[in-house]
Amino acid sequence: MSTTRQPSSALPFLLVHGAWHGAWTYERIIPLLAARGHAAIACDLPAHGLNARFPATYLEQPQRPAKLATETSPVAGVTLNDYVDATLATLQRLRGLGHDKVVLVAHSMGGIVASAVAERAPEAIAHLVYLTAFMPESGVPAVSYIDSPENEGQRVGGLFVADPSATGALRINHRSTDEAYRAANKAAFYGDVDGIAYAAVANLLTPDVPVAPFATPVATTAARWGAVPRHYIQCLQDQAIRPALQQRFIATADAFVPANPTRVHTLDASHSPFMSQPQALATLLADIAES
Amino acid sequence: MSTTRQPSSALPFLLVHGAWHGAWTYERIIPLLAARGHAAIACDLPAHGLNARFPATYLEQPQRPAKLATETSPVAGVTLNDYVDATLATLQRLRGLGHDKVVLVAHSMGGIVASAVAERAPEAIAHLVYLTAFMPESGVPAVSYIDSPENEGQRVGGLFVADPSATGALRINHRSTDEAYRAANKAAFYGDVDGIAYAAVANLLTPDVPVAPFATPVATTAARWGAVPRHYIQCLQDQAIRPALQQRFIATADAFVPANPTRVHTLDASHSPFMSQPQALATLLADIAES
Repeated sequence: MSTTRQPSSALPFLLVHGAWHGAWTYERIIPLLAARGHAAIACDLPAHGLNARFPATYLEQPQRPAKLATETSPVAGVTLNDYVDATLATLQRLRGLGHDKVVLVAHSMGGIVASAVAERAPEAIAHLVYLTAFMPESGVPAVSYIDSPENEGQRVGGLFVADPSATGALRINHRSTDEAYRAANKAAFYGDVDGIAYAAVANLLTPDVPVAPFATPVATTAARWGAVPRHYIQCLQDQAIRPALQQRFIATADAFVPANPTRVHTLDASHSPFMSQPQALATLLADIAES
Repeated sequence: MSTTRQPSSALPFLLVHGAWHGAWTYERIIPLLAARGHAAIACDLPAHGLNARFPATYLEQPQRPAKLATETSPVAGVTLNDYVDATLATLQRLRGLGHDKVVLVAHSMGGIVASAVAERAPEAIAHLVYLTAFMPESGVPAVSYIDSPENEGQRVGGLFVADPSATGALRINHRSTDEAYRAANKAAFYGDVDGIAYAAVANLLTPDVPVAPFATPVATTAARWGAVPRHYIQCLQDQAIRPALQQRFIATADAFVPANPTRVHTLDASHSPFMSQPQALATLLADIAES
């Protein structure tokens, strides 16, 4: 361990998680990126991880389903701008590592955030990577894709235990003791992850995701968002964002910016390759950064 | 954002969390270190975070206290060597960033791990930082300090809901609905953190910490562990590892290695300044790295 070395000149990563998740999404990826020379930061978005807030009923034992179905969410007021501002603040801090540009990776709902960030600061992003993520058409809110024909077979909507329009949140009950519900929750997001690891994931997940960011359209332009090298990692076994919807996102983006087509990569994985295939995902991400 | 820059030559950090916690401990610190030029990695130790395992009773509603008090822990077989091997593997990956040495920071129980890692790989550690952590005398298991006179007033032991010798774990019930118990749990670790943030923390905490690492002595030597520049961050309001015990750790280490005395820093904080004073802690850590 005494070889003289130089600080890595490899691009750093900014890693954005999806709904109900937190920075822990990338816990197994970050050391693997470091081994390839890449520093990386993942942060909890507002309303997630250490910033989560909980309906009181969620913490009761036993929970009361009727109350859980109607209790107003304490995160109902969180907006897409809140997500974007937090991510831009982290991006600015990450620039302290001395690179002009970063690789911005977004999983699932995080794609909405990444699109808005790339539109705001395209000059700071070397590669924009959608990991089986929402990549909506300019001006189209993400919510409009959830029940689209291309997303047929998605298993997330059936997990909601409250009416989003009444509570202000997409609410999933990760503490349910109903075996069938727990199995459906796992199947929607973590079908290829073993039950022991999934139990640890379920402990970290949080119940309430604000509705507003899904309902807020992002205006992207070919000159800004469209000018950033763009990648999409398709996950072929995804039960949350179905492969046909992933394909629609790519086709729409490529029609919008034909001069800068999406570079498409595939993993034969569920919605959560960061848990089921961390080495394959990390290798792919490092390859993208070095491409 | 167009200035030409050089990759930071600042030392990277390896951040080790404490018992019941996970990599998320450092979630608010890592971006602040990046702003100062330092890359950083925190990892979940075995039996923690994404590697946690749960007694079945913990996940039931309502929980059955008598069963929770006696159920054998699924992490009872995890050893100090498991912690050390995992941390050394992360250290090796972190070296991919191109630095010969890292700053190793350990919180609370993580201090046991850091001592063992520093003894194994002193040449890889530029600074060894104990953040209100166990820093046991060579050959003395950490458990022997818990009820020492210097630790009088510690509020952790009263939280255990099972007999460690029967279950193999130090078990805390973060999902308790007993308001007095929840308040005592917060007071032991997070007395200076607001209730909303603490609820998010409590969701991420895990119940079972294996007994063995606390009961395993670490043999340190003046030539290896003792040769690494050593820092102790005292937390003056700590109700888990009391200030007098922190002081005893420092005095014992300095008697063992008088030529390399501990550099002592203080925060007027609870056991968890990463939540109550993240900017002050990050500034202190960066100052240490650059000292």
